[in-house]
Amino acid sequence: MALVTLTTDFGTTDPFVGIMKGVILGRAPEARIVDVTHGIPPQDVRAGALVLRHAAPYFPPGTVHVAVVDPGVGGPRRPVCVETATAVFVGPDNGLLSLAAPPADVRRIVHLNDARHFLPAVSTTFHGRDVFAPVAAALATGTAPAALGVEVPDMVRLDLPAPVAGPRGLRGEVLYVDGFGNLVTNVAREDLPAAGFAVRIGTVRIEGPSTSYGAVQPGAPAAVIGSWGLLEIAVRDGSARATLGAGVGTPVDVESR
Amino acid sequence: MALVTLTTDFGTTDPFVGIMKGVILGRAPEARIVDVTHGIPPQDVRAGALVLRHAAPYFPPGTVHVAVVDPGVGGPRRPVCVETATAVFVGPDNGLLSLAAPPADVRRIVHLNDARHFLPAVSTTFHGRDVFAPVAAALATGTAPAALGVEVPDMVRLDLPAPVAGPRGLRGEVLYVDGFGNLVTNVAREDLPAAGFAVRIGTVRIEGPSTSYGAVQPGAPAAVIGSWGLLEIAVRDGSARATLGAGVGTPVDVESR
Amino acid sequence: MALVTLTTDFGTTDPFVGIMKGVILGRAPEARIVDVTHGIPPQDVRAGALVLRHAAPYFPPGTVHVAVVDPGVGGPRRPVCVETATAVFVGPDNGLLSLAAPPADVRRIVHLNDARHFLPAVSTTFHGRDVFAPVAAALATGTAPAALGVEVPDMVRLDLPAPVAGPRGLRGEVLYVDGFGNLVTNVAREDLPAAGFAVRIGTVRIEGPSTSYGAVQPGAPAAVIGSWGLLEIAVRDGSARATLGAGVGTPVDVESR
Repeated sequence: MALVTLTTDFGTTDPFVGIMKGVILGRAPEARIVDVTHGIPPQDVRAGALVLRHAAPYFPPGTVHVAVVDPGVGGPRRPVCVETATAVFVGPDNGLLSLAAPPADVRRIVHLNDARHFLPAVSTTFHGRDVFAPVAAALATGTAPAALGVEVPDMVRLDLPAPVAGPRGLRGEVLYVDGFGNLVTNVAREDLPAAGFAVRIGTVRIEGPSTSYGAVQPGAPAAVIGSWGLLEIAVRDGSARATLGAGVGTPVDVESR
Repeated sequence: MALVTLTTDFGTTDPFVGIMKGVILGRAPEARIVDVTHGIPPQDVRAGALVLRHAAPYFPPGTVHVAVVDPGVGGPRRPVCVETATAVFVGPDNGLLSLAAPPADVRRIVHLNDARHFLPAVSTTFHGRDVFAPVAAALATGTAPAALGVEVPDMVRLDLPAPVAGPRGLRGEVLYVDGFGNLVTNVAREDLPAAGFAVRIGTVRIEGPSTSYGAVQPGAPAAVIGSWGLLEIAVRDGSARATLGAGVGTPVDVESR
Repeated sequence: MALVTLTTDFGTTDPFVGIMKGVILGRAPEARIVDVTHGIPPQDVRAGALVLRHAAPYFPPGTVHVAVVDPGVGGPRRPVCVETATAVFVGPDNGLLSLAAPPADVRRIVHLNDARHFLPAVSTTFHGRDVFAPVAAALATGTAPAALGVEVPDMVRLDLPAPVAGPRGLRGEVLYVDGFGNLVTNVAREDLPAAGFAVRIGTVRIEGPSTSYGAVQPGAPAAVIGSWGLLEIAVRDGSARATLGAGVGTPVDVESR
């Protein structure tokens, strides 16, 4: 029983995701399909890459992860498949798969250029249906990645901004904002002063870490180590995005206490 | 084949729900997972409890219902599992499970305090992933509720407002507004005058019951017995919420005709 | 293993879709259920019919497609089941199924009037739960369509607007707008001048066809043959709906180049 996950910016208003599932199940009737999310902001490859990186480790070994955030569909960007020790990733070669499959984990990168594994007619606008879904079905039914195309030495990689030395300690930034309005930063647990710290975002100063969202007063901001192992700014019973007027790219300063 | 349902306020923009499914399927590969909804308004425990109460009866016996609307995650609130004659409910002990498992139906309430059934590392912000998903997998693979922790005598219970005697008959209120803008009240079918009635909401008077949404003119309000067995105010081909300016808590008066 | 798909305007905020799945799986435990979409605009039968028509061909033979966009629920419209050579469609007889099952493909239309296949109590507001889900389960477990009611000679059919002769060539219109803001028209690939063409929409003129969304400059409009085989107007890295101020019904003129 192969597990196939889907991560896209297709939304759920249109039938695009359902159509991909129809293609997969037509060719791999026993596959189990799980939606990671279809709410990646349109064409936001970096957000898709972050989501895939933090979701994939929670799936069992051998899972086939299909990701499609693909502003270059129909153009020269390559469709690829990336094999690691624990999973196989399928999608466009635009950086989307790169955070989930860091160089040290990669066993093989395959340029998906064997059209025998695609739908008979390939559109220029919907490779999720015509290329990536049938390739996922092939993988789910036991086809080896190496049989799907020609091996290539590398793929497009995204550079995430790293925290830097800042005026008061470490300067990071907001990487991702979740649906609750929590601000996920690029400052990892291991980057944080062990003895406690304070965070400045805009004009607000927050003592950290809070042990949970609920450890501060209602409406107050909290600095927690979130579920991705990253410093996260939340507002209890509210939205940090709205309350603090922050978003992706907002600087976050961390100083020792 | 165990059936596991998920009801949360996580939304579908983020990968949180997909991650929970990865955890469940990693530990219970044969489980069938069904989304009840992930659109509970953020941290609205009562809305989650209402949804679970009206959805759970439509699932087959033995279903494991996981619900996570959990503003107190990481704090002192207990994770619990509640066994009834027909289902098992898993979630935070904040009232969320209480409407679906009324006292007369409860066989056993278990405080989930045996960390052997959790993920190895438990965050303070995402017990859906770290506690409730692996516990659901344990239940889905046959672990008895009693083996998951220590039995406790009770759990937090929500009090729903009951209809009261009003100026013209019965005064109820809006409990829930669905995505069509229909206003679901706390007045049950059996509370309504058998000979017909009129409903007043704001300055509008509606003759009831209508036999269906379509039994009134387009744009007109209708008072129907909705699919939850409760008096519901709708507007044909429109939204009662918008047309009547009503929402959760809006009073609704019912008078005999 | 029967495959059941769901296409509705129920949205995903409420538990309605989850409840339908509970009913189906209670009666057909082995069924596989795939969401086509629940984001059809409320009560927009034509949008639902278009989505079903373009999604159904990608599912394997024998799939049971349940569609519920049903403003007349509880009124006189009939519940029907339509059998074609490759699929079975279930839903209200209001045109919703008609584009996916054109007359030449129809083998049998059955008025679902045998209540033994429904839930014991049928509400007037939620036939998705009470009628269509249990009927889908019956079909998924091998009940023949003909056993579900009485055969009838026809069903309600939608007329889609066809392109007409226009001031400069062919005049079509926008049929559907997807979540990216792409404008899908009623002009089919085979209607387009083989030697190239120009499209006028409002005051904008677009040379076509573009070979992909990315073949034009960022922010520029493109005329592509979309994944439904129809002329589609897109804006690279943007929304044609917003940029061009267009929507369903907006005229689109095609002239030979």
